[in-house]
Amino acid sequence: MAFINLQNDLPGIRGPMQYSPETGEALNELAEILLHDDNNTLSRGEREMIGAYVSSQNDCFYCQNVHGALAQYYFECDMQLIDDIKKDYESTSISPKLKALLSIAGSVQKGGRHVTPAQIEHAKNLGATDKEIHDTVLIAAAFCMFNRYVDGLNTWAPQDRNVYVERAAMRAKEGYANIDLNK
Amino acid sequence: MAFINLQNDLPGIRGPMQYSPETGEALNELAEILLHDDNNTLSRGEREMIGAYVSSQNDCFYCQNVHGALAQYYFECDMQLIDDIKKDYESTSISPKLKALLSIAGSVQKGGRHVTPAQIEHAKNLGATDKEIHDTVLIAAAFCMFNRYVDGLNTWAPQDRNVYVERAAMRAKEGYANIDLNK
Repeated sequence: MAFINLQNDLPGIRGPMQYSPETGEALNELAEILLHDDNNTLSRGEREMIGAYVSSQNDCFYCQNVHGALAQYYFECDMQLIDDIKKDYESTSISPKLKALLSIAGSVQKGGRHVTPAQIEHAKNLGATDKEIHDTVLIAAAFCMFNRYVDGLNTWAPQDRNVYVERAAMRAKEGYANIDLNK
Repeated sequence: MAFINLQNDLPGIRGPMQYSPETGEALNELAEILLHDDNNTLSRGEREMIGAYVSSQNDCFYCQNVHGALAQYYFECDMQLIDDIKKDYESTSISPKLKALLSIAGSVQKGGRHVTPAQIEHAKNLGATDKEIHDTVLIAAAFCMFNRYVDGLNTWAPQDRNVYVERAAMRAKEGYANIDLNK
């Protein structure tokens, strides 16, 4: 049970977002630009995967399942690949560039000062642009916020992982900006 | 020097915010609601202090000085008190309720799962409302994002702490929502 009375029964971040719709709208606006906006050279799947990976490093069950299911939807793969990436991305078949970006995201998760010039240079050598590195750092940083918001208030989460897979297509279609927090 | 070419010489978070104004505006909108909006039973000083404390725990020089100077401005105290709060808030003269909220913020900084029911109950017993606990968790979580954005891109920061003190009154007056990222 959540630490405060959220006045609704919604799971995960949806509970406090509806409890506090003004901040909820700002958070969804940020998520829309970072994860859903098509004006980005990183695919939606790559961006959702960065969020899911950081959420798994932060041990946030709700976020890693929501965004892992979205990455799976966009990648058109099975959930095993998503789980393998979260567990040990270096051993998977994803692109070297995405591996380099996940390495940066993993350092951001530990703390901003953990990112090294060598990690950045490696990503650039594999074709990552300045904007892609910027977005990787901000996506990773944003999930360090989302994850703490979800777990710091002790929100509940569906334990059946299929629930998240079943909702992914709807979220992919609708995005984040148009979520109505007042219903 | 920043890890990417930010195309401007602005310090701290202002550099990447101008580089990426669309996300910058969403971040400033969030900061405005959490830190500057007067529709809140936590004072602006208390909210800025929570941000400064979390930033000090994350070792983010830029953010702890920007928001420490703002807390000092609102509290109408000297910087020594702000430094004492960051170092050991329990030994300072701030209210027991603010101490309880800083304790929660400190746990959020470590990770959402670090917040305990006992910390929440203690804050409630000292008069903290559900909304104040919600805002404390989200402010702490948001600074875990801001700090990582600033340091994960290796932005530069003025080393003279007076620079931050001198800017605090202007930021207090103008707030965050109206910052023009296109100039």
